Amino acid sequence: MKRILLISAAGLMVFVAGCQSTAPLDSEADVIVAQLQQDALSSDLAWDILASLTSEVGPRMGGTEADKLAVKWAVKKMRKLGFDRVWTEPVKFPRWIRTSERAEVFYSVPPEPLAADASEMEKRHYEKSRQKKPLGQSLAITALGGSPSTNGPVEAELVQFDSLEALESASAEEVQGKIVFISTKMRKTRQGLGYRETVVMRSRGPFVAASKGALALLIRSVGTDTDRLPHTGMMSGSEPGERVPSAAVSNSDADNLMIMLAGEGSVVVRMNLDVGFAADKYTEDSVDDYEEGESAEATSFNVIGEFDGSGDLAEFILIGAHLDSWDLGTGAVDDGAGVALVMAAAKMVSELPVRPRFGIRVVLFANEEQGIYGGKAYAKLHELELSSHVLGAESDMGADRIYSFRTRVSAQAEPLIARLAKHLGKLGIERDESSLASGAADVGQMRKLGMPVIDMKQDATRYFDLHHTANDTLDKVNPDNLRQNLAAWVTLVYLTANSTTLFGPVDPSE
Amino acid sequence: MKRILLISAAGLMVFVAGCQSTAPLDSEADVIVAQLQQDALSSDLAWDILASLTSEVGPRMGGTEADKLAVKWAVKKMRKLGFDRVWTEPVKFPRWIRTSERAEVFYSVPPEPLAADASEMEKRHYEKSRQKKPLGQSLAITALGGSPSTNGPVEAELVQFDSLEALESASAEEVQGKIVFISTKMRKTRQGLGYRETVVMRSRGPFVAASKGALALLIRSVGTDTDRLPHTGMMSGSEPGERVPSAAVSNSDADNLMIMLAGEGSVVVRMNLDVGFAADKYTEDSVDDYEEGESAEATSFNVIGEFDGSGDLAEFILIGAHLDSWDLGTGAVDDGAGVALVMAAAKMVSELPVRPRFGIRVVLFANEEQGIYGGKAYAKLHELELSSHVLGAESDMGADRIYSFRTRVSAQAEPLIARLAKHLGKLGIERDESSLASGAADVGQMRKLGMPVIDMKQDATRYFDLHHTANDTLDKVNPDNLRQNLAAWVTLVYLTANSTTLFGPVDPSE
Repeated sequence: MKRILLISAAGLMVFVAGCQSTAPLDSEADVIVAQLQQDALSSDLAWDILASLTSEVGPRMGGTEADKLAVKWAVKKMRKLGFDRVWTEPVKFPRWIRTSERAEVFYSVPPEPLAADASEMEKRHYEKSRQKKPLGQSLAITALGGSPSTNGPVEAELVQFDSLEALESASAEEVQGKIVFISTKMRKTRQGLGYRETVVMRSRGPFVAASKGALALLIRSVGTDTDRLPHTGMMSGSEPGERVPSAAVSNSDADNLMIMLAGEGSVVVRMNLDVGFAADKYTEDSVDDYEEGESAEATSFNVIGEFDGSGDLAEFILIGAHLDSWDLGTGAVDDGAGVALVMAAAKMVSELPVRPRFGIRVVLFANEEQGIYGGKAYAKLHELELSSHVLGAESDMGADRIYSFRTRVSAQAEPLIARLAKHLGKLGIERDESSLASGAADVGQMRKLGMPVIDMKQDATRYFDLHHTANDTLDKVNPDNLRQNLAAWVTLVYLTANSTTLFGPVDPSE
Repeated sequence: MKRILLISAAGLMVFVAGCQSTAPLDSEADVIVAQLQQDALSSDLAWDILASLTSEVGPRMGGTEADKLAVKWAVKKMRKLGFDRVWTEPVKFPRWIRTSERAEVFYSVPPEPLAADASEMEKRHYEKSRQKKPLGQSLAITALGGSPSTNGPVEAELVQFDSLEALESASAEEVQGKIVFISTKMRKTRQGLGYRETVVMRSRGPFVAASKGALALLIRSVGTDTDRLPHTGMMSGSEPGERVPSAAVSNSDADNLMIMLAGEGSVVVRMNLDVGFAADKYTEDSVDDYEEGESAEATSFNVIGEFDGSGDLAEFILIGAHLDSWDLGTGAVDDGAGVALVMAAAKMVSELPVRPRFGIRVVLFANEEQGIYGGKAYAKLHELELSSHVLGAESDMGADRIYSFRTRVSAQAEPLIARLAKHLGKLGIERDESSLASGAADVGQMRKLGMPVIDMKQDATRYFDLHHTANDTLDKVNPDNLRQNLAAWVTLVYLTANSTTLFGPVDPSE
């Protein structure tokens, strides 16, 4: 009751202040949104959920024990938050294992040339130092997801290419028997544009290197930082054919390699990756190494929680994030923040005295990182009932400030989108009409089947400093930015779940 | 000859431009300094020396094979740069070895309390989950230099203190049998003031923890970054008595631990440090593990190079830096930059058509990190001839912009210091008269014996982000800032080496 009174009082003030506007306010919903934003901007709810996930679970790579723990955590947390129903749906995928990874570089600078009148002793000394194996420098590397094992150390000359295209143009002779190094630098932009430009090194590099007879691949990290923390990430699973053992070096190490490669000496790298798909790792010969829980196929779960709407309708909006993370950091930014935001937004909106018309379904997707397994499984299972999903949205770009949103909805939703734009505008968020929303990785699977979607776009300037590294930890999340995100999400959730019109149909192929 | 003409031409311009100044210019030296600064501001010499060190040698902890390589590198480089004489002086110290280090935290959140009417099955499930060992989260740690080995894993409850003082005030009961965690955060300032405030955790913590019966010590890294790269560094070697195995966690991990410690669950840490002084590591029982080159006492070398002056005098100025680094990064910032700067400054000044009156001695000190061994050995060996050292200066705070300088010289040097201030002012460097120069760690050993010193103070804002971490690599050095440093050093070297008055005597005890 106290809450209703508070909202009414605040509502009056907002309504009066709003009278200067030319467009008439549809008072009640606007008042509720204003109050929700205000509450979100001083709420610790998303932070508390996120801190609980990163401290109680931490890193949670798909298929690991920690992944199972994350599923349990999510079910428990949703129940505690009072979701009307909580359930899980199994998601299967090939198990990939990282046991250890290590690399060194040996840079041997040739000795000063011998003088013509060198003595026998000088000559022997020269020959000795020319043949001496140099000391190695340890490289900060991490295996790429999907990489096979090196099966013990591989050691070979390093051959460098500026880009994947350059490697593609190389002759087999240039590459055969060597370790390939692709060194493209990712640029930093608010939209994260550099990612698409450079991630091909990671997704396709291992296959191209294999096709030319390379022993292994080293790539400069797909990341914009200068920390000695390499960026992992999946190589493309859909690419046919052979792949070489592959790893990323930190940007700092890549710079050091470039200095060596520009010098006069030889550059040799030794790499030892004990990683691989369980199916390849445990053959009949090594059955003794086989441990329980390391079967070739792993099972995880999409965790789903639902708040009913007030409209007694079968329809709901779907908001999602992925529950898994890579194994190097605690996945606070990718995608713990998204998990916390969608759970907190659903909770806040559902605590209103009168809930919105449609239900709110929160989906925490399994194993996005290794191939969007959760999103694909959800789309497959729910394909025939997708018409009940009136709209979808996903948070999977950290928790720095949301600066724009874009839509993929039908024309009749325009009045609601205009209202959404007005309210998001108060949070510094502009409507972007230059392109259609994608739904991001997981929710995008349903968009492809025709579900309308809205994207909330976070500032990605800092995102790719942290992405897929050990540095993806809670201290990188700015609590005020997280609250701005939450304010945007409660706005989106309330207005769209309370819509009196539908958002589709949309053309998924555009 | 070409060079002389160029300088003369430039000199004329500077002289004319300088006529607006009220103080009359002592034309020739001023012209030379102006030209030296200009040359330094476009020089790649310091960068090239530094890149050579970090690519050809890399990490070079005192007593390691890489330390030996660094000594060879320095001798070779000095010869190549044309120093008039190059020699080494042995420095002995106890060998400390880092083999491996690893820690995990186990945070067990208690299950939801049982309902009064819980079934037998629920009770069994509750008991099972209450007793289940939680999954561990890996902690980014690094052993502190001087730490003993844990001799296998130690595992115990973590007990946290805000500061060393708080630990000192704790009763033995609070600490006994536990792993102590000291969590003081270092603040970031241009002067690096936070270091002195927090380094006591590292220097004295291991001894205080031992005195209270702790099993081991974990400290928040003495560093101002938020990277998951812990900061190593020596515990105080002079402290008497027992020390516990000790490590630093990254700031990110420290934050995660603080969240766990604030929660309701128990926080247990398992630590496994295979480190220690060789003297303790290889006992009679483990003689089989003993490898060549791992004797209890290690020998390294101060590497010394000298350019003669034009004055046919026995006196010289001494400029120094330390050649060793910690083992985690390539020591580009600490203290590769200093090594490169003093070598490059000496070289540039000695290439002048007329060299300064006094000689220039460059000393690259051995093993500063583990106890200022090189500085102390130099002071001891050269104590009786210290009067030939007219002035000393050291570069050991990275290579961000020098913003001030301070002196410890006699009053009769004031005219020269005023001229130095005028020229350094052009590089944005102010004279700091609020305190006397210290000579920094190594050169400070000779200051204590009465050698006059000047300190060039770099902006330390970023320095303690990188200090003693894997992140101390060449990409962190800004080439323009390095050139500004070089311009300051050539100014200092030329003016002081060309002085017609002496800088002493000074009172070393002030």
